[in-house]
Amino acid sequence: MRHFSMKWFKSNIQVQTRGKGLYNFTDQVESLVGEWRVQEGICHLFIQHTSASLVISESYDPSARIDLENFMEKLAPENQVWFQHVLEGADDSPSHMRSMLTDTSVSIPIDGKELSLGTWQGIYLFEHRARGHLRNILIRCLETS
Amino acid sequence: MRHFSMKWFKSNIQVQTRGKGLYNFTDQVESLVGEWRVQEGICHLFIQHTSASLVISESYDPSARIDLENFMEKLAPENQVWFQHVLEGADDSPSHMRSMLTDTSVSIPIDGKELSLGTWQGIYLFEHRARGHLRNILIRCLETS
Amino acid sequence: MRHFSMKWFKSNIQVQTRGKGLYNFTDQVESLVGEWRVQEGICHLFIQHTSASLVISESYDPSARIDLENFMEKLAPENQVWFQHVLEGADDSPSHMRSMLTDTSVSIPIDGKELSLGTWQGIYLFEHRARGHLRNILIRCLETS
Repeated sequence: MRHFSMKWFKSNIQVQTRGKGLYNFTDQVESLVGEWRVQEGICHLFIQHTSASLVISESYDPSARIDLENFMEKLAPENQVWFQHVLEGADDSPSHMRSMLTDTSVSIPIDGKELSLGTWQGIYLFEHRARGHLRNILIRCLETS
Repeated sequence: MRHFSMKWFKSNIQVQTRGKGLYNFTDQVESLVGEWRVQEGICHLFIQHTSASLVISESYDPSARIDLENFMEKLAPENQVWFQHVLEGADDSPSHMRSMLTDTSVSIPIDGKELSLGTWQGIYLFEHRARGHLRNILIRCLETS
Repeated sequence: MRHFSMKWFKSNIQVQTRGKGLYNFTDQVESLVGEWRVQEGICHLFIQHTSASLVISESYDPSARIDLENFMEKLAPENQVWFQHVLEGADDSPSHMRSMLTDTSVSIPIDGKELSLGTWQGIYLFEHRARGHLRNILIRCLETS
């Protein structure tokens, strides 16, 4: 336990996608935390979209990522006859379903000037639309040291 | 970066549901943040239930919402022969499954006295029980300005 | 609203699993919060793994837990012909899928020196691997009183 003086850091991260899939942007988050020299605290990420989402997952073997992408295609498939929301394309309603099943916000501790991710963890943006988009993620760090 | 004086605001929000479905309560959250005059910081929401959950999703076209509701009925269907937890009704065990797949807590940045939601994002309570319930969501805001 | 002096508490919690399933570790979290005498604030939990995850769910009736475990086996089944990530065993790729659908981080308010969980809520670690593992969860508390 420790009393401390607190600091607040804020920025946003942009990820340009090239259609559906998982995009690892751990480096961009770590780079900001490093630049801000946050010694200890917590890092909040928030994605401002309803057809792209956040996932913290295995970042070592690319085949694990491909399985996650294919799994999502099967779990929330396109072109279902019961869809009512179809005006924006076959991939739009499934994109909201896939976003709902994954994360809009995540909070990661910072210790020793680094994100306290596990050995195999990476931070991904999951693009659910078929076309590429420029996606915006808000990053907020509370320094507690 | 900036040193700052911190404030903590707390309240709870109640949502009366009328059975299964997504209930948009963005206005109630924004109203509290406005009342508290939180300039900048982060807003934590936590739902105190295991058969209702939180979702941040598309809030413009009602047909998108209906597809999400129907999707959940198919993803975690009722009346499966392998259910063991049936004493509290056919909708009870699926309600825990649906809660598990969505959110119990979300954290949304506040900037310029407003929640930094994306253009199409709304905050929903997802009621998973067939009967209406009075649901309780805890709201905690850390002001960092 | 109130100005206040802030404190930051940090530790980690280890959970030894015995293979797949939900492990309730609410007591370990409550015990730390009690030991730290956190009057009011927020408690952040973060799991450092990609094949085990966090879930806040029904903690009263054990049959509800069993249904959740069986549901996950059906939702993200093992041994699918389309899997590419198979070198680490039949349970590895599904373990990442199941982690993706549940939580890596959760944030729970603290009030009156206790976690503000709902009546039926418990905090679970969901082990997705067939073999037992020693799992690590980071716990960070911001005291705001």
